[in-house]
Amino acid sequence: MANIYDSAYDLEKAIRESDEFKGLKQAYDKVMADESAKKMFDDFRTTQMQLQEKQMQGQEITEEEVEKAKGVVELVQQHPDISKLMEEEQRLNVVINDVSKIITKPLEELYGNPDQQQ
Amino acid sequence: MANIYDSAYDLEKAIRESDEFKGLKQAYDKVMADESAKKMFDDFRTTQMQLQEKQMQGQEITEEEVEKAKGVVELVQQHPDISKLMEEEQRLNVVINDVSKIITKPLEELYGNPDQQQ
Ligand SMILES: [Ca+2]
Ligand SMILES: [Ca+2]
Repeated sequence: MANIYDSAYDLEKAIRESDEFKGLKQAYDKVMADESAKKMFDDFRTTQMQLQEKQMQGQEITEEEVEKAKGVVELVQQHPDISKLMEEEQRLNVVINDVSKIITKPLEELYGNPDQQQ
Repeated sequence: MANIYDSAYDLEKAIRESDEFKGLKQAYDKVMADESAKKMFDDFRTTQMQLQEKQMQGQEITEEEVEKAKGVVELVQQHPDISKLMEEEQRLNVVINDVSKIITKPLEELYGNPDQQQ
């Protein structure tokens, strides 16, 4: 019987060595190496997080903030290196979501279907 | 190089076969097999989720609700099978949190320390 921690470290290694992760790292490093791209990406992230935080706290988001966010998104989408980075993030996200579904299956089976126990 | 999905399924199997998961399943099945324990546990869960939802939506939690929640917690803590179940949940939670930290390490390293890149 494999140990949980051994298996988790194997999975971490598999993620680190995957094409998806390597592609993301490459795209990320490219953006970070370009001062103006880095600033644009950081602005985008900051704007995103500020809006998310407001939403979670149930605060009102002003029309001005919506306009600003739209502008920042449009800007980053037109930057080839940043849009590549966002594409790679999306690609790895799909895999990570799949992994999360796979490893939470035992718990989901236990708690999700109380009428279907053996 | 191990495939991410193969490694994820190996990890799922390791979780399913672990003492922690088996202990949780045994404790859960014991509570579910006892009609009054099951009802008490379901009430506890429902109360917990309702309060969490209210909190997340920034709604006010009344004094009456706090008192009711306290009462439900006291009740379940005094039930040996339910407190055993909660203990087993806590035990597996620790492992799952560790697993989550291990497998998100590559992403955390990439995004967490932009000044420490190779
Ligand atoms: Ca079940
Ligand atoms: Ca880094």
